[in-house]
Parts: sequence; structure tokens; C-alpha cells
Amino acid sequence: MEKKNNPDTIQNSIIYANNAATTWPKPPSVLVAVSQAAAGPYLEQGRTTLQDVPDYLFETRRKLANFFNTSDPDAYVFTANATDSLNLLIHGFAAQEKEAFHVITTSFEHNSVIRPLYELQKTGRISVTVIPPNAEGVIDPDDVSGAIRDDTKLGIISHAGNVIGTVQNIKEISRIMDEADTFSIIDGAQSAGQIPVDLSRTVCDAFVFTGHKYLFGVPGTGGFFLKRPDKISPVRQGGTGTDSSSPVQPESMPERFEAGTPNFPGIAGLAAGITFVHDIGIDTIQKKSMGMISDLIQQLQEIKGVSLLHENPQTPLVSFQIPGLDPDDIGYILAKAYRIISRSGLHCAPWIHSRLTEGKGAVRISLSYMNTFEECTQIADAINALCQSV
Amino acid sequence: MEKKNNPDTIQNSIIYANNAATTWPKPPSVLVAVSQAAAGPYLEQGRTTLQDVPDYLFETRRKLANFFNTSDPDAYVFTANATDSLNLLIHGFAAQEKEAFHVITTSFEHNSVIRPLYELQKTGRISVTVIPPNAEGVIDPDDVSGAIRDDTKLGIISHAGNVIGTVQNIKEISRIMDEADTFSIIDGAQSAGQIPVDLSRTVCDAFVFTGHKYLFGVPGTGGFFLKRPDKISPVRQGGTGTDSSSPVQPESMPERFEAGTPNFPGIAGLAAGITFVHDIGIDTIQKKSMGMISDLIQQLQEIKGVSLLHENPQTPLVSFQIPGLDPDDIGYILAKAYRIISRSGLHCAPWIHSRLTEGKGAVRISLSYMNTFEECTQIADAINALCQSV
Repeated sequence: MEKKNNPDTIQNSIIYANNAATTWPKPPSVLVAVSQAAAGPYLEQGRTTLQDVPDYLFETRRKLANFFNTSDPDAYVFTANATDSLNLLIHGFAAQEKEAFHVITTSFEHNSVIRPLYELQKTGRISVTVIPPNAEGVIDPDDVSGAIRDDTKLGIISHAGNVIGTVQNIKEISRIMDEADTFSIIDGAQSAGQIPVDLSRTVCDAFVFTGHKYLFGVPGTGGFFLKRPDKISPVRQGGTGTDSSSPVQPESMPERFEAGTPNFPGIAGLAAGITFVHDIGIDTIQKKSMGMISDLIQQLQEIKGVSLLHENPQTPLVSFQIPGLDPDDIGYILAKAYRIISRSGLHCAPWIHSRLTEGKGAVRISLSYMNTFEECTQIADAINALCQSV
Repeated sequence: MEKKNNPDTIQNSIIYANNAATTWPKPPSVLVAVSQAAAGPYLEQGRTTLQDVPDYLFETRRKLANFFNTSDPDAYVFTANATDSLNLLIHGFAAQEKEAFHVITTSFEHNSVIRPLYELQKTGRISVTVIPPNAEGVIDPDDVSGAIRDDTKLGIISHAGNVIGTVQNIKEISRIMDEADTFSIIDGAQSAGQIPVDLSRTVCDAFVFTGHKYLFGVPGTGGFFLKRPDKISPVRQGGTGTDSSSPVQPESMPERFEAGTPNFPGIAGLAAGITFVHDIGIDTIQKKSMGMISDLIQQLQEIKGVSLLHENPQTPLVSFQIPGLDPDDIGYILAKAYRIISRSGLHCAPWIHSRLTEGKGAVRISLSYMNTFEECTQIADAINALCQSV
């Protein structure tokens, strides 16, 4: 049991390559911030009156606003994770619409988009058009234009996909949606912290982020930036510590979407994660991580029997198959024999897997700034050995 | 800034009496568990295949099942907080019902119940009967019987109120609802960990708990026990790591209600909190904390000018007014002049405040096992001094 619980032992013995699920390890500054905030006390500003304890919520909102280059910290809402954010936005948008409407989205979407949309579709609230990628694995903005109908009210686009790592032109796609008066939600779960996101340069209506991936916070945190709160009904209601005599959720941001006691430790950790990314710089992060993934892809391309789903990612991940082997078995062998943590299966993204793997799945290696070039070579060597043994 | 961030400095200098909002300090074992889990790695069982990392989710579910004396760990769902739990249950129940229906609830409810009900009421989905307490500040089970109509489908009862600390007879009330085929939700936010809860001895359909109050976990955690999952539609959908090719939320528990990456550090802390409570024993916790609150109430009763909302709580809290002073001003002075952290206002419970304070609010002192008898005397002395100065 002692060994089980000792992260140092584990850290020294595994190669962690599942960063698109959650990054690991977390920066020491994040762990310190989480521990410090967990130790409390939690004196919510405005509700109590002792102001010598950090206001974790506002501080983190301020850092988010600065990081994404927007002016108003209160435009940032905290949630439990990106899935929670997407549910609040998608169901909150649908709740505002009286009539059935049309939604456009892409083949890259995660079950956090697919399942809420399906829920609305099956009750006849919406119809959905799924835009496939072009030959380069990218959503063509012209295809977005072409998919917009008179009744298209909502568009949801993954900024970066979690299976092949291509990045969409959210600036152009948001502009197209804005012109068509289509509310645009960008899912930045795989982009925020890894590639530059300047929300002052896109006209998107909402941008979803998660705390525990490339922003290097811990699991249990996420949120969204929302430009037009009036377009989203608050589908979760509860105490906000404000206007408590009213049975109606407050209209003001961010209380409109934040009910109940927040995850203070997680939110404090997120602030430290943003500072970590900011201090290193996205350019440096991109350069190192994309250097590593290019290196790994080059090595994989030389291995006979490895079939890559895509060769030019813009986020540090690569998915592959080894014909004749089940992806889950590959993941199992990598973990058991080589202590390499990958992620096998459909990656909660069944639509893109239908297109690229006939739904059979793949093994994904996803890196973060914390990986090393040496680990990439070890991963390639392990996959090579595995292929030789088939 | 250094002083601001040092909890030791704060710990030595404040008297924390806002435990009904969130308990503080947390047990050292909880802080260690949170830190250890935050350090990761997070290798979700079933998705990866390296099994030498603790399965925080299952371990905590197992501890919850044991603590509340039920058999199936998978009947416990994790959420962001009790508000989130109540929303998933209330809106999930309403989503299953085709026709408008009647709901019974009590004057003690929090905005986490009031606001979701109001949302359903304003769109005509439900009508609501609010059962007031009797002269002893308790909900009379006969009044529950009397409120049930032919179309009563749902009942929501706070186990313990957060303003006057009386406890409801959930065993009898659940039995009455069960007989009438009324789905019963017990809000245990103020009871779990503080008073005995044996779910094998009540027929309630759902029991809501929060992690960060008397179970001594950290903010950002909560959940519910659910006996009849088929009665609650999953109103939040997303990736579960299971059955990923299906656009439908899995039916199996707990995935039916858990989408997205969980709060591993918080859930690990909750397990440690439950162990803390279990090891000390609810009897010991009750004896000490009720001893302290009785002591404080006795001292307050001797102070001229203090008006107590209730004198016989069953959880360790007391709410009071000082005629001529605004509750918020009292809270402010207690914090600034005496470094006593109370909570003033409506406590997110406007209905009971309408009855007891004409909506003017009160100051609440709420203790936990971690307080001391000495602190109670200091609190009484401060309130006495404050009254003398009026």
C-alpha cells in the first residue's frame, strides 16, 4: 500500500503520455496552491467580512481574462470540468429558444458535445449537421458557410481535436457564424494553454476551457468565457450568496451560472497553472512539445507495421494502430511491459473514429511540455519492439 | 502578501464559527489526501491499465456506502457540491414526468432547492406546497401526510435546517412519501457527518450530501445516494469512458450521472474526511459539538439585548439578532473587532427567514467538532461587549 500511494515512486517509473486526458505531472507551484487553499480558511469575499484571505475566485478570473486577452474578469464562469461547461451552455441556449432549431458542429466533437446534442435531438428540439474535415483533417470554413441554414441558431466547434490534433480556424469560423447570427461555442479543452488563444481577436460568443489539461490545474476545474449571458438561460440554480431573498437565479455574471460552494482549492490551483504557462510562454511550450511530437512521429513512421491516423498534428499528440492488434491490447502491453501510459479506444470521440478507424479505435500518445525527448525515443522503441513481436 | 497566504497565521488569529457553510479547519489527514491525489498521476481504472495507483472514486464510494450503511457503492454519485446534486435530482426527476405535477417541500429549504423549484414552477411544470414547521421548529409528519395530493410526485426535505438547526424525522416522512408513491429527496447537507444517518433504516429514494461540511472534505465535492436511478433522467451528458460509441448517456450507475473528468483530489479528501468522522465516531462528535453549542446558548441567554431565533438546536448552530443592529453590521464587527467568523444575512434560506425574522436576517454562529469550549466563551464575551456598546 505504501508504494501504491507514493507518487514519487510512480513518477520515476512511468512514462506518462496521456496528457490530452489530463496533464501530468502538475507544476510544483500548482500543487502548493492547491494545498494552501485546501488548508483554508475559505472566507468568501462579500459574505464574510474578513478580507485578509486571498480571493481565489476573483484572482483566477483576473488571470483568465489576462491570459485570453479580454477585459472583464466576470465574463469567466467556473464549472466542474469542460463537460459541465458545455452542458450549461448547450442546454442553457436550448432553454432560451422557443422553437426547434438547427445546430452545426464537426466530426471532431467529444461525447461532451455529442451526448447533449443527441439528448436535444431525440426530443425534437434540434436538428444537427455534422461537418466533416477536409483531406488535411481540417474543417473548411466554406463548409461551415455551406451548412448554415435559415434556422441555424447554434454552432459548436472543437478548437483542437483530441484524436488527430488538428486545429480549426476559429477566427474565421466564428466570423461566419456571427454574420449568420449563429451563437458560436468554441470548445477549447484541447487548446487552452497549448496553443495561443486570443479572445479579443475572435467574435465567438462562448469559449470553453478545462483547468486540468494544458492549463496545468488539477482535475475538478473548468469553466467558460461568455460574451452574451442573456443568450444562455441558467439551467442550474441555487444559492449564490447574493440577492438571497429572490427565488430567481441572479442575472449578473458570474453568479448567473455559479451556484453552490465553489472548488476553492482547484480554482487556486488553476491560477497557479495559468501563471506557470504564462511565465514559460506559449511559444516556448509549443516549440518544445511540437518538437517532441514531430520527433516521435518521425520515429514511428520508420517502424513497419505502425499505421498513423494523422501525421501533421498542431497539438502534441499522435494516434496509431498496429494492424492485427487490438488498440486496447496495445495500450495494455505498453502499460504493463513498458510502463507507458497511453489512451486506447475511441477517446470519447466516436464520430471522428467512425471516419478514420471504422469505429475500431486507436492508441493515442499525447505529450505535454513536461515530457522529454528521451521519453519519446523510449515510446518509439517500445512500439517498435511490440511490432517486432507481432 | 506573505501573511495573507499563510493559513497558520490566520488559524491562530481567528475564531471560525461558520461551519454550517464549510467546516474549518480540515483534519490534517484530509489535507494530506488532497495533496497526494493532486500530485497524481490520475490513472483512471478501466481506461488505462496500470493498476498500482489508488482508485479514489471507488474507494470513496465504498466508504460512503459503509458510512451510510448501504450495500452498493455504485449507488453513490459524485457531483461538484450539494447544489449540483439537488439540481441533477430535481431537474432529472422533472424531465421524466410528462405531465405537470405537485411537489411538497418545507420552509427550511435552501436556495439550492427553492430556485430549481421556482424555475419549474414558473414554466408551469410543477405546483409547490411549502410545509411550515410546528411551534417546536420541526416539520410534523402529519402535515406531510396532509399536504400530499393525488398528483404529488416529489417531496424534498432538509434533514437539518441551516438557520435553527432542528432535525426532521426523515424515517417517518420518507415512509409517508413512499406509501403515497411520492419520490423523496432528503437534503443531508447539514446532517451528514454531524448526526447519524442510516440509509438502511429509511425508505427515502435519494439522499444528498456535501463533502465539505461535516464530512470534513474540501469545497468542490458533493454527491448523492440514489436508490431508483430509473426515476431520474440524466440531465447532464458527456464522456464517461464507457460505451463511447453510443450517443446516449450510459444507464449504469454511477456513469449515468457522472460525465467528464472527476475531482480526484477532492474525492480523495472526502474519503479521508469520512474516515476521520468514522474513527472519532458520530456519538463523540455530537456530544462535544452539542455540548459547546448548549454552553454558548446558555451564555447568550444571559445577555440582555440578544434575541435567539431558536434555543434547542440538534446541530451545533445558533442564530440571533440584536434589536437595533443590522445583522450584517454585527457580523462585520465580530469579524473586524474580534476576528470571529460568523455568517450574517438570510443564509440562502429566505423562506424560514420570512417566518422568523420577517426577512431581516440574523447572525449565525455554527460550530464543528474542531471548535473549543474556550472559543464559545470568547464568542459570548464578544457578543456581550457588542450589546453593551449599543
